[in-house]
Amino acid sequence: VDHPPADLIVREQEPLNLEMPFSSLDGFITPNESFYVRCHFPIPEISTSDWRLRIEGEVEAPFEVNYEEIRAMESRTISATLECAGNNRIFLEPKAKGVQWELGAVGNASWIGAPLAALLERAKPKSGAVEVILDGADEGQVDKTPTPSGKISFCRSLPLSKARKDVLLAYEMNGEKLSASHGFPLRAIVPGWYAMASVKWLRRIIVTNKPFNGFYQSLDYAYWDRSGVLPTLVPLAELQTKAEIARPKNGEIVAADAVYRVYGAAWSGTGEITRVEVSFDSGQSWHEAKLLGESVKNAWRLWEYEWRTPAAGRCTISARATDSRGFAQPADRSSDRGTYMINHLLPVEIEVR
Amino acid sequence: VDHPPADLIVREQEPLNLEMPFSSLDGFITPNESFYVRCHFPIPEISTSDWRLRIEGEVEAPFEVNYEEIRAMESRTISATLECAGNNRIFLEPKAKGVQWELGAVGNASWIGAPLAALLERAKPKSGAVEVILDGADEGQVDKTPTPSGKISFCRSLPLSKARKDVLLAYEMNGEKLSASHGFPLRAIVPGWYAMASVKWLRRIIVTNKPFNGFYQSLDYAYWDRSGVLPTLVPLAELQTKAEIARPKNGEIVAADAVYRVYGAAWSGTGEITRVEVSFDSGQSWHEAKLLGESVKNAWRLWEYEWRTPAAGRCTISARATDSRGFAQPADRSSDRGTYMINHLLPVEIEVR
Repeated sequence: VDHPPADLIVREQEPLNLEMPFSSLDGFITPNESFYVRCHFPIPEISTSDWRLRIEGEVEAPFEVNYEEIRAMESRTISATLECAGNNRIFLEPKAKGVQWELGAVGNASWIGAPLAALLERAKPKSGAVEVILDGADEGQVDKTPTPSGKISFCRSLPLSKARKDVLLAYEMNGEKLSASHGFPLRAIVPGWYAMASVKWLRRIIVTNKPFNGFYQSLDYAYWDRSGVLPTLVPLAELQTKAEIARPKNGEIVAADAVYRVYGAAWSGTGEITRVEVSFDSGQSWHEAKLLGESVKNAWRLWEYEWRTPAAGRCTISARATDSRGFAQPADRSSDRGTYMINHLLPVEIEVR
Repeated sequence: VDHPPADLIVREQEPLNLEMPFSSLDGFITPNESFYVRCHFPIPEISTSDWRLRIEGEVEAPFEVNYEEIRAMESRTISATLECAGNNRIFLEPKAKGVQWELGAVGNASWIGAPLAALLERAKPKSGAVEVILDGADEGQVDKTPTPSGKISFCRSLPLSKARKDVLLAYEMNGEKLSASHGFPLRAIVPGWYAMASVKWLRRIIVTNKPFNGFYQSLDYAYWDRSGVLPTLVPLAELQTKAEIARPKNGEIVAADAVYRVYGAAWSGTGEITRVEVSFDSGQSWHEAKLLGESVKNAWRLWEYEWRTPAAGRCTISARATDSRGFAQPADRSSDRGTYMINHLLPVEIEVR
């Protein structure tokens, strides 16, 4: 079977939301032209001659840098898997509002940029600093109640400790200059977190002395945390452990009594994927898949399973992942997660013929 | 004109939501049978023999008390005006969801109870304690997204400093034992704050070492604070400065060329009402009203204006209040406040005949 380079599926034109057909998965790196695109507002048109990044707020030494200055800083290259927090939403029952992502609002790229830690070190956060807000240039009106008056920008905060640890301010994606749809001239890459944290079209880094509770981490992109005495609404953060099956895809017809290479990817938050299992009998028995390549921090792990197909008939294939912390995928789903963090098992129905 | 004791207006039967017809305002104290009732869930049936209040969380010495023990503590008596954060919602344009309160989701009573500070002192909050959650026994399902799974209780947090300052745990209202609809056996009174903070049917006091973000202070009863660099969602708290006209009421017919006593109440958060003005020409000219009685901390101030009525015709009457901090009423309304904190000017249309 041939798997030609994917065209992206248009989920929305305005704002632009494009999905990779996940069955076209073809390697560790997702090519830029196949990488999903998630926008909340029209894509800002930014010229590098006007653009500045300002570091401000609770810092001793606020400053701004231009595009050349960011590129002249000591750079770092990291692999990171980005997954939209609403990936797999189309499978929710009952049907949920929001972009109807199937399996392909996820991708893995190599990013080059400047560590956020270096900029923070220069700005010198004051002793009471607790968070860092990443503010994007994309803006528009939103419609939940209470409705912020006027336009708001897409922005998101991180604990200062995370901002200092491994957040990258990226200007290159897979060896190419960032494209407009991926955040040109500069975007954040927040390793191990759902991609709403990796703010695009960055224009400001604001250090704060109290937790920020912006629209995109309260009325949107938040969930009910039940680890305390009473449920509390917290911003979505770490990626949940998940395996997705790229091939066979739903509805595929597979040859009977043959060998078929079941193939997919698995990822987790700060954990490392240690096991992927596959089931061909609706989860009654499980078979260990082979993890491919080496484990790369914050990137997905590809996997395969050489399946000796049965005689003709219908077949339900499931995959499940476990990570180094023992985090596995749940069988069921809680409304505490709203329409996000969807990592319960998603079986693929195929026909063996 | 006679103003007989009011019957309450039924806004909702289940849960029970009752409003005072504000034109029946008749004195500093709102009688218990005229006091508005705001419920989110069915009223819990609580027997004092089973009931306990537990003080727990980030404290050195958690404990529980029963009804007799609370009543045996040194008591305090305070006046406090309670106003529902959605009072006046019926006047919003466009029409807003929620209970359609007119002018009467407000009342002023004398409360007897034990200071929360005394219970906290006994429990000894740990050094990192920052907030106190008041948890009620009323519970049910809510329907915003993300939807908390299962039932949730009505609960609300306060900064530890406010909890220690002047919060009362009340068991008597205007000299009578609290009624079931007002929170029997014990409710909080949080002076100067919108009444959603004055949690009824108290069962737990939970001290926390980080800010709580429960349903009733995030997805509900919150607003956009724009005092910082970017809008942040914060829990509703302090009462906004407001004057309401009790008489004449909307549509009333008033005798021409006579003296009419315009009458109402005004209140604020921690400020003191220093001025109420009345206009009879849609806000072109203003006349200072007379403040009645003495100023009582955290309670409303009644006011009157002896109006020499004009010749026959239509007339628009407005009132506006100013407090000791200079806080006045806005002419317009911002969507940042959602369907709460409604204190823009609300003119009364009458006919002089």
